[in-house]
Amino acid sequence: MVSSRPAAGARPQSVSLRRRGPVLERAILEAALEQLSRVGWNGLTMEGVAAGARTGKAAVYRRWPSKEDLVADALQAGLPAVGEAPDRGSVREDLYELCRRMRDAMFSLPGAALRAVVHECDAPTAERFHGLIFSGLIEPSNRLFGEVVRQGIRRGEVRSDAIGELVFDVIPALMMYRSKMCASELPDEEIVEMIDRVMVPLLRSRPV
Amino acid sequence: MVSSRPAAGARPQSVSLRRRGPVLERAILEAALEQLSRVGWNGLTMEGVAAGARTGKAAVYRRWPSKEDLVADALQAGLPAVGEAPDRGSVREDLYELCRRMRDAMFSLPGAALRAVVHECDAPTAERFHGLIFSGLIEPSNRLFGEVVRQGIRRGEVRSDAIGELVFDVIPALMMYRSKMCASELPDEEIVEMIDRVMVPLLRSRPV
Repeated sequence: MVSSRPAAGARPQSVSLRRRGPVLERAILEAALEQLSRVGWNGLTMEGVAAGARTGKAAVYRRWPSKEDLVADALQAGLPAVGEAPDRGSVREDLYELCRRMRDAMFSLPGAALRAVVHECDAPTAERFHGLIFSGLIEPSNRLFGEVVRQGIRRGEVRSDAIGELVFDVIPALMMYRSKMCASELPDEEIVEMIDRVMVPLLRSRPV
Repeated sequence: MVSSRPAAGARPQSVSLRRRGPVLERAILEAALEQLSRVGWNGLTMEGVAAGARTGKAAVYRRWPSKEDLVADALQAGLPAVGEAPDRGSVREDLYELCRRMRDAMFSLPGAALRAVVHECDAPTAERFHGLIFSGLIEPSNRLFGEVVRQGIRRGEVRSDAIGELVFDVIPALMMYRSKMCASELPDEEIVEMIDRVMVPLLRSRPV
């Protein structure tokens, strides 16, 4: 802690390297995300996070009484803002842009941390994270896909009855399935295939 | 162990309740599946399985040196045979039958055990199970969906280019996503929606 003024006759204090407040908190939250993505929910410990943030256990516990609290805040702080729906003139281009953004978010540090939690928490612990996952990931994705599809309906590219939760779930579901079950890293070519072989046929308006 | 003949002068031995060979092994494998579906991979212990099978730890370790070996065999033994592709005259009916079969398998004891493993094993441990999951679940589903789609192509209901891995992945991906992320138990109505709102539009042939 940096004193506001040195005691009379004392040597001038060097600037303390001890971080405070938001800077320290951010370091702790980032260390939690890093741990999560590396060793998962089960492997994460408060001590490990403290070490990763180069601070003491007490600094962590003081702010977050439990592992759950810490992880909830770390995910909340870390989730990338989803942004606005792209509008590039065709639903195919819009979907491509949106999917690449989602893929990049999934494989970002916070995304990898979130996936670790999603996959490991099947228990009451998961309740709290499910709420966060819903508000931080599912609901925004659903909203953006819905906007892209509605843009397509207005352009006449997409059939007017292509609405409903399940339609908007297809891409997130496929991306999670391919990455989890098929160990895919979702390269651009695979995203193009998802769009051309699945989404475009699913959505396109039929000739009259 | 039942003696083949009683010692001279001894009272007749009552039939021993100790199980042997395949009967005991089956009890152990079933106990492993039950534990897996209840407490997951992380919660499963050899001692717990032994207790569930009403036997001693030694009987388990003698046959399965590690938790991994035990779980691999339990899953292998437990996975329901996928059967043949239904042919009820329309791709919509065929898909409905197939999806209900898959849903029932997912929520069966072996299915729940498999899902617990899939969701918890993200590490090198998972390698071995991924192979089993692929051969026991993914590959058969893919094959059956492929047959149902090809039947539809032959009937003229399904467009001839509706082939490829990703198309066949949509249903399994949606079912896993809805059950994992949305805590759905995949009731019949939801399966009908998946088929009517997603698969039929995705697959149907276009009017010329």
